[in-house]
Amino acid sequence: MFRAAVKTLSVATTTSVSRGILLSIRHYCKKTPAKLRVSEAVSGADLGAKVKVQGWVRSVRAQKANLFLHVNDGSSLLSLQVVASSELNDPLLTFGSAVEVTGTLRKSPHQNQPVELEAQQIHVVGECNPVDFPFKIKERHGLEYIRQFPHLRCRTNAFSSLLRIRSEAATAVHSYFKPSGPQNEEEENFFSVPAFLTVSGQLHLEVMSGAFSRVYTFGPTFRAENSQSRRHLAEFYMVEAEVSFTQSLEDLTKVMEDMFRSATEHVLAHCAEDVDLFHKHVTPGHRVTVEAMLKKRFPAITYSEAIDILNRSSEKFAFPTDWGCDLQTEHEKYLVKHCGNIPVFVTDYPYDLKPFYARDNQDHPEHTAAAVDLLVPGVGELCGGSLREERLDLLRARLEEAGLEDTYSWYLDLRRFGSVPHGGFGLGFERYLQCILGVDNIKDVIPFPRFSHSCLL
Amino acid sequence: MFRAAVKTLSVATTTSVSRGILLSIRHYCKKTPAKLRVSEAVSGADLGAKVKVQGWVRSVRAQKANLFLHVNDGSSLLSLQVVASSELNDPLLTFGSAVEVTGTLRKSPHQNQPVELEAQQIHVVGECNPVDFPFKIKERHGLEYIRQFPHLRCRTNAFSSLLRIRSEAATAVHSYFKPSGPQNEEEENFFSVPAFLTVSGQLHLEVMSGAFSRVYTFGPTFRAENSQSRRHLAEFYMVEAEVSFTQSLEDLTKVMEDMFRSATEHVLAHCAEDVDLFHKHVTPGHRVTVEAMLKKRFPAITYSEAIDILNRSSEKFAFPTDWGCDLQTEHEKYLVKHCGNIPVFVTDYPYDLKPFYARDNQDHPEHTAAAVDLLVPGVGELCGGSLREERLDLLRARLEEAGLEDTYSWYLDLRRFGSVPHGGFGLGFERYLQCILGVDNIKDVIPFPRFSHSCLL
Repeated sequence: MFRAAVKTLSVATTTSVSRGILLSIRHYCKKTPAKLRVSEAVSGADLGAKVKVQGWVRSVRAQKANLFLHVNDGSSLLSLQVVASSELNDPLLTFGSAVEVTGTLRKSPHQNQPVELEAQQIHVVGECNPVDFPFKIKERHGLEYIRQFPHLRCRTNAFSSLLRIRSEAATAVHSYFKPSGPQNEEEENFFSVPAFLTVSGQLHLEVMSGAFSRVYTFGPTFRAENSQSRRHLAEFYMVEAEVSFTQSLEDLTKVMEDMFRSATEHVLAHCAEDVDLFHKHVTPGHRVTVEAMLKKRFPAITYSEAIDILNRSSEKFAFPTDWGCDLQTEHEKYLVKHCGNIPVFVTDYPYDLKPFYARDNQDHPEHTAAAVDLLVPGVGELCGGSLREERLDLLRARLEEAGLEDTYSWYLDLRRFGSVPHGGFGLGFERYLQCILGVDNIKDVIPFPRFSHSCLL
Repeated sequence: MFRAAVKTLSVATTTSVSRGILLSIRHYCKKTPAKLRVSEAVSGADLGAKVKVQGWVRSVRAQKANLFLHVNDGSSLLSLQVVASSELNDPLLTFGSAVEVTGTLRKSPHQNQPVELEAQQIHVVGECNPVDFPFKIKERHGLEYIRQFPHLRCRTNAFSSLLRIRSEAATAVHSYFKPSGPQNEEEENFFSVPAFLTVSGQLHLEVMSGAFSRVYTFGPTFRAENSQSRRHLAEFYMVEAEVSFTQSLEDLTKVMEDMFRSATEHVLAHCAEDVDLFHKHVTPGHRVTVEAMLKKRFPAITYSEAIDILNRSSEKFAFPTDWGCDLQTEHEKYLVKHCGNIPVFVTDYPYDLKPFYARDNQDHPEHTAAAVDLLVPGVGELCGGSLREERLDLLRARLEEAGLEDTYSWYLDLRRFGSVPHGGFGLGFERYLQCILGVDNIKDVIPFPRFSHSCLL
């Protein structure tokens, strides 16, 4: 049985490992040691305290007299250095094993780890055979290698940093739309109702904006895209917002840009060490790109201007750039570079390229719809949005043309009973993470990537 | 065209409705009136200010000299009373129409609506034919009636209150697991990483608790349940938490109870008016039940004790109550009543009733697993959880028995490489809302209910 392998290793000052002695040590200390997370222990707030820390061994180094461990519990990138008498060493104390360490927090003589835990007791809770474990001590494994082990990659520095950043970015998205605490009143109330929809799309969000004025939702979305690209997944997270009583596309681009800035500043401030790991070791140099993005307002060009820019360029594109053609990734990347390698809005796309709900600009000779995409460095399209056709007659005519009038009679109802000008957008959350971290492959920014013909677990 | 019907109604003091006059009024006021949400306007903070409010008409009353409207924009249950000269009346100003009202906020002579908007201009943005609109002015429509119009029911008081409560409860769940702002340190750090998984289950959350120690996720879940009950949906929201280094089921029941209390207190405090609407008009008397739930600690009984209670009762049950039988809704409801109509934990279920990952209690003669359900008044099962089998040999034996060893080899890996004692639970978010609001049918607490053989939109 696995439990039989669990060992309790006691301190050198006790002559034998027995329940009686351990109990008397606890009695001597008068109280059970406080359980601390590693992030709390390394903060230095509890120097001198007797504590218990639980986590996984990230390094083991045995010297003649002393044993040094690094223990990580996922609460931060930093591990806690544990110093013990070498008598506490044990063959089961390997890279990857789970341990419970009781001891006293001391100021460390080393500058880059101000706190260490002087261990009185080390308990191996779960073994880890280093030969079978796919990650090796002191080796830096690439993202591609660790991607093969979706059930274990949380135990690497890079992926645990990534997930802490992802989690903080998600919190930042919620805080942007629904700030709590003391804020100026306008900000506090801008989006009063997060929709927390199950799986529904923008049309369903429009149902809610037609009563709550401004709503957002943030959750998983599914696309049966048969694409093996570095930018597509079958399951991904999407932020969607819908705003009633809009006047123009600028009402939407303002929200998109504000959200991007607010979330990015939040992440840079709250996950500094984790972001640094990426910007220094995984995607070196990307910090400069991110800082440049935050420095300037995002420019906006029309689709027609974009086509002009592409046609005037000396670049050879694989796809056509005639007015009316959809912008391809190569075009998007060129436009971003052209605009100074910062995010850029492209507005007013050809009417025929956009779905039935996009608002008709009723212009000519080039017929456009009030739609907008946000293109960002390295990724291309990050957000897509539009004003929605709120005029009953125009919307009905377009649905009739497509033979969809009956299917969407409920959607037409929204224009029959108190219709208002409104619009909204969606942001691909994984692409956002790729953008701020510089991660090339979308599969590396989501815990369990699902994509066509592959589902590892 | 719909736009043609949009009318701008100007104040009585202007002799004709013309763009020029409107511009000059705006010029006279020197600045554009501030756009306020109804919740801001009724707060009374801006008395005397010239403001613009946008929303939907909830009542229209024309007297000889004056016109009275109530305008609601979903920001609160309260509507803003608008008072205008009757010259601003218009046949398009009907119940359900969308309007934009510019005017001055005044102290109201009426006690129960301290603020009113003295309108200088009323703009009908979107008409609403009151004959076709399924909701009628001054009628109180039942939840069952409004459920037929999933695309319009957000415009009723009851359902808009429900969605504000749902939204605030979701925020409360996130704040429970990931508090922000000044808190004591332990609380602040308890769950450091919200997983924000796409659709994955508890086994995937275990992957993450095996690196981050304590994780939670909150999102949609799908079940192909062919049930037409008032407690089941094909799509619902679930809160799931997974905690490493657990000692016992009490580690889990503590989190479940704390979360329930914390979320409920948050909702009662932050959505007082919306909750009151339910507790006074929709489910009268339910407030007493909720208050009773919060007064006492939740009792815990074992499954064996539960079976004894059922067998000693004089109640005739439709389903058997022999040891080894699953508890049915009728049993769950009886147990809750028996324990004082407050939430009750039932622990240590028969081993054979529980899935392969539940931890074997290795007891006899009655073989149980360390699993727990939380049963609540009116609903029955709200949460289900267990310690997970962390012992490699026991887990492998059980998977081999079921012929699942290969499928779950990745899951076995979690026990091979640094396994720790851990456990977790899930809470059905819609059932939670039913429980605190007293709502009988689960379809009334979710924006777009999906259930077998039915998908209205």
